[in-house]
Amino acid sequence: MLKGETDKQMTFPENSIGIVEPQYFVDDAPFPLESGAILPSITLAYETYGRLNQERSNAILILHALSGSAHAAGVHADNGDSVGWWDECIGPGKAFDTNRYFVICSNVLGSCYGSSGPMSIDPQTGKPYGLNFPVVTVGDMVAAQIKLIDYLGVDKLLCVAGGSMGGMQVLEWAAHHPERVKAAIPLATTAQHSPMLIAFSEVGRQAIYADPAWNQGDYYDQPQKPDAGLAVARMVGHITYLSEMSMQEKFGRRLQDIEKFGYEFQTEFAIESYLKYNGNKFTRRFDANSYLYVTKAMDYFDLSAECSSLAAAFVNATAVKFLVVSFTSDWLYPTYHSKELVRALTAVDADVTYLDIESSWGHDAFLLEVETMTNLLGSFLDRLSREEQVTKPLPLEMLAAEEH
Amino acid sequence: MLKGETDKQMTFPENSIGIVEPQYFVDDAPFPLESGAILPSITLAYETYGRLNQERSNAILILHALSGSAHAAGVHADNGDSVGWWDECIGPGKAFDTNRYFVICSNVLGSCYGSSGPMSIDPQTGKPYGLNFPVVTVGDMVAAQIKLIDYLGVDKLLCVAGGSMGGMQVLEWAAHHPERVKAAIPLATTAQHSPMLIAFSEVGRQAIYADPAWNQGDYYDQPQKPDAGLAVARMVGHITYLSEMSMQEKFGRRLQDIEKFGYEFQTEFAIESYLKYNGNKFTRRFDANSYLYVTKAMDYFDLSAECSSLAAAFVNATAVKFLVVSFTSDWLYPTYHSKELVRALTAVDADVTYLDIESSWGHDAFLLEVETMTNLLGSFLDRLSREEQVTKPLPLEMLAAEEH
Repeated sequence: MLKGETDKQMTFPENSIGIVEPQYFVDDAPFPLESGAILPSITLAYETYGRLNQERSNAILILHALSGSAHAAGVHADNGDSVGWWDECIGPGKAFDTNRYFVICSNVLGSCYGSSGPMSIDPQTGKPYGLNFPVVTVGDMVAAQIKLIDYLGVDKLLCVAGGSMGGMQVLEWAAHHPERVKAAIPLATTAQHSPMLIAFSEVGRQAIYADPAWNQGDYYDQPQKPDAGLAVARMVGHITYLSEMSMQEKFGRRLQDIEKFGYEFQTEFAIESYLKYNGNKFTRRFDANSYLYVTKAMDYFDLSAECSSLAAAFVNATAVKFLVVSFTSDWLYPTYHSKELVRALTAVDADVTYLDIESSWGHDAFLLEVETMTNLLGSFLDRLSREEQVTKPLPLEMLAAEEH
Repeated sequence: MLKGETDKQMTFPENSIGIVEPQYFVDDAPFPLESGAILPSITLAYETYGRLNQERSNAILILHALSGSAHAAGVHADNGDSVGWWDECIGPGKAFDTNRYFVICSNVLGSCYGSSGPMSIDPQTGKPYGLNFPVVTVGDMVAAQIKLIDYLGVDKLLCVAGGSMGGMQVLEWAAHHPERVKAAIPLATTAQHSPMLIAFSEVGRQAIYADPAWNQGDYYDQPQKPDAGLAVARMVGHITYLSEMSMQEKFGRRLQDIEKFGYEFQTEFAIESYLKYNGNKFTRRFDANSYLYVTKAMDYFDLSAECSSLAAAFVNATAVKFLVVSFTSDWLYPTYHSKELVRALTAVDADVTYLDIESSWGHDAFLLEVETMTNLLGSFLDRLSREEQVTKPLPLEMLAAEEH
């Protein structure tokens, strides 16, 4: 639906795609997982923005990070504050220009925003799976996305793009399904989750396990949820998404709502207040079990695991065009991870553009450096569209005419 | 007591000072704290190694980090495994050469290794203080140490030395009690706890608060202690003491005791196993409330807070000789913190030697780069001893002879 069409009372951010509707793709076929387990069926929550062109060659799949959802752009009709997580880059005239591209985003398997995950009902028991939901991998997430784009009638994606865990999915697409993508944009990511990344994941999981309300994942019908543990996990995560520099700039040693030290165990510094606020806020929107599943999938991710080298993982991806982006102050997915990736891609003669963007925002930069990202993504997609002769979708009026 | 004197069965590390005895200094005078609160008395656990010279000019005070104790060197008679935390640098012929120097180390106020802290008995109730123990600062820790060296008959310390929080105490000594120290060795530290450091502290505290067994700090007579929360806090800390590089070298993506992924929520990676092991081990030796107190003291630490600049904080310390050391891969107390310190010291014309040591060990490097540290500390102390004409302590035989 386009901007302002249904609800004249809602105000949208500039160039917003407007009101968007969550959709659900259900595939009732048994879905085999990398672990060997089989899901009896899968559901993927997804959204689309813009329209397919006649050749079905203008589809872009956006892939979200750890706590993301299918809601990447626009606003949900029932909540004017629900702006999509990458709204600044997806919309009319934006980096992912919805006047030109058909943009798709789906919630990953294992998550809690409408796709199959530990909160889903286990048909065998009629209750939420909890820890009975099988462990999924980034490969499984992408296998499910393939079902979705099949369903949407897209044979080959113009591009897959995403940052952090989204970038891992991008790399999974390119390495294992290169025939389905023309271009890949991995942002602030890695081809192999490092021990430091695993360590931070595990601390988050341990914080959840340590919460008695977690109850081995069986809490959906309990009055108390493992919010305390999940909040701690999120606080740890939040620190890793920032940089020392951005924390200095944003918070410094400023006190929050007090003039001087209280000499008590209370929230005193602004940075403490920020972390606590975000930790608590997160518990209202995310599921503790999903946090376990999604971080586990990230930890398992290692494209080079079954190859002689990282380059070997991309041996079939030589026709894919890559735009690799890292950020100078990202210490969680440091620049050298991207450089290793670029070296591997170069070794197999893939078409790679690489940029290490100067930014003080740390890992979050891929969401915050909007102007730089807009220019960069925009010109990459321009070039790609020219080279691939991607046509614009037909104007709505013409589509309507055709239906007569 | 010297090596092998008492227990022929114990074997000591090479050049160990041998069996050492914990001692306790009790000052029954009311002890005013920076907060305005007053402790009715203080106890400091301490140890000493080597002997004072005739001029009482060869005393070195070693200052420990967050979870350290007074037991910096040697072995306790009742536990042959209890090697002191800086044994590799303190002993006969080592960096802090106990043949030449009288080395003192005491447990900080607020900690749980024998000094006054939340585990101490509150004389008003006859029970452990818990959260009724007043919040202490790095300044309070040092004020208590001054009482101790007064008691030990040391008017002026040859040197104060320590890393991390130990380094903060070093800087506190130099800035606020320059008349009591000739030299200061702050290692891998900062003059101002940064928001990132506060953030990691706070996450650790939140993990403890989140544990129901913490019970507002009132758990000493309970069967269950807040071990789960404390373990999570320690795991977070442990990550920050390492570097991405050292984790890669030490653990990589190696699995622990399994051949392949189990697709379960268990400890699978070696790094997970390491963190969990260390988190749990920590709960057997450290007190959760003390973790709160000591991290809070670190967060409050900011030498420049009441000055126009950091340099102004050292305006009375121009006679102190500084050896400032940072480590290239320490991202918790990054090099630039030490450089700021050096700039401030240089601005007031202090005598500063600065070294940024190339190391892949992260923050822990100050404990692990033994050879480099031995050479560096050794030659700094050599120069200092020459300049200050520090004599050796009398040999034991002569002391014995003098007593006749």
